[in-house]
Amino acid sequence: MFDKSTTLEQLNAVNKNTLMEQIGIEYLEVTEGYLRARMPVDNRTRQPMGLLHGGASLALAETVGSFGSALLVDLKKIDVRGAHMSANHIRSVKDGWVFAEARIMHRGRNTHVWNIDILDEEGQLVSSCRLTNFILPK
Amino acid sequence: MFDKSTTLEQLNAVNKNTLMEQIGIEYLEVTEGYLRARMPVDNRTRQPMGLLHGGASLALAETVGSFGSALLVDLKKIDVRGAHMSANHIRSVKDGWVFAEARIMHRGRNTHVWNIDILDEEGQLVSSCRLTNFILPK
Amino acid sequence: MFDKSTTLEQLNAVNKNTLMEQIGIEYLEVTEGYLRARMPVDNRTRQPMGLLHGGASLALAETVGSFGSALLVDLKKIDVRGAHMSANHIRSVKDGWVFAEARIMHRGRNTHVWNIDILDEEGQLVSSCRLTNFILPK
Amino acid sequence: MFDKSTTLEQLNAVNKNTLMEQIGIEYLEVTEGYLRARMPVDNRTRQPMGLLHGGASLALAETVGSFGSALLVDLKKIDVRGAHMSANHIRSVKDGWVFAEARIMHRGRNTHVWNIDILDEEGQLVSSCRLTNFILPK
Repeated sequence: MFDKSTTLEQLNAVNKNTLMEQIGIEYLEVTEGYLRARMPVDNRTRQPMGLLHGGASLALAETVGSFGSALLVDLKKIDVRGAHMSANHIRSVKDGWVFAEARIMHRGRNTHVWNIDILDEEGQLVSSCRLTNFILPK
Repeated sequence: MFDKSTTLEQLNAVNKNTLMEQIGIEYLEVTEGYLRARMPVDNRTRQPMGLLHGGASLALAETVGSFGSALLVDLKKIDVRGAHMSANHIRSVKDGWVFAEARIMHRGRNTHVWNIDILDEEGQLVSSCRLTNFILPK
Repeated sequence: MFDKSTTLEQLNAVNKNTLMEQIGIEYLEVTEGYLRARMPVDNRTRQPMGLLHGGASLALAETVGSFGSALLVDLKKIDVRGAHMSANHIRSVKDGWVFAEARIMHRGRNTHVWNIDILDEEGQLVSSCRLTNFILPK
Repeated sequence: MFDKSTTLEQLNAVNKNTLMEQIGIEYLEVTEGYLRARMPVDNRTRQPMGLLHGGASLALAETVGSFGSALLVDLKKIDVRGAHMSANHIRSVKDGWVFAEARIMHRGRNTHVWNIDILDEEGQLVSSCRLTNFILPK
């Protein structure tokens, strides 16, 4: 459940020993139904041509959309399962950072739907993603 | 362009200093229009609950679908751009390896469409993905 | 629930006064987890350029995938809700018939996932679709 | 090409003898990069349970996104091809009208990406769709 007293440092500590740590994902802002995070464009996230790997953008998008839903439910009683991701890749990025902005579009009893935009440092759209999570009693 | 004399070792060397190296993706079989690769389910690819991160599966899927298209064109004259990914996540995985099987469904003049299944060690479906690549003259 | 004694004529009668009747969709083969249907390419399903409307293909795909799931559950106790559709359009069609072939890919407790291929009269792929249905207790 | 002097009546006349006429789709507002249309929820667009057919919503979404792109190019020189549709179905509708609002998200040289929301009469989200069109020289 979302708890306003939790610090960003504590939220980022959850990512220790995960994919997020491996590719440098860091939460910047976490509120109820909205998250912002960043990811470096470097050797951890590039493809062989030297550009940001589209798959890294998808990993970033699924991270914020999943974590956002986890924060909205009681994980002792409820399972959040990523069910469907769809994404348009719009623009390529060479270096610096990309930023994910996740907003919940639909907070239903059985599903959450998130829109997640990946933006470059100028705020231009890199990828736009939709994640559907199932919300299931354990 | 696909060259049968290229060894798997040479193809995997392309992944040095990329996302693929960072999360342990390795090609196992590469032919014209079909690729197989594997990825470890460990601290490099897990989410905080200890399961395979759906975003890691997406990164694996985008890797094989993109590389598969790159091998079908002359990259000096042609750009391959990942345009759209959609994926259903079906089953969770705790450890071991997952395997990607990518088959080209449509090899058109302007687009390639790939079906990529992610399977666990028992061959059960973990995620099923569709990647659309644009094939554009430089 | 799927009942082998139900005739195709009875199944098609369900489509009376629906979108299916309006655009000429007709079931050809209905078994557990597999359906085949056809739709005419004519003024009921064309776009202004005289080709099959991609949206008509989507309507056909959603029809067979939804009906397929409805036949697998007890509709008195269970709701089937179309949750997500994704589709690649591959080839255009001018006239004649198109055929939908729907196969269930995942029959889970909470979700069904269908692959639905739309084919022309020569069996060439027109569109390839994935429908995710939620399976929810009433 | 978009021509401000064209009337809504003229734009709707293009839909004569098409899927749009068959299921009652009507343009309400057409500007550069934004369109609004409506569709009746009645026997032309319902599924057998008496609700709006998800496939009708998809047909409406593909209609406005395709027409929107067609208005942005010179159709004598350029082909617009619907390449990929993805859609989340959120809410069911029993009767009245649904409204499509289409906004172009990316107007590139080779692709257009549209976000299309389907709304009920109270403005609540029924489905949210993303259409990717290829923009190809003839």
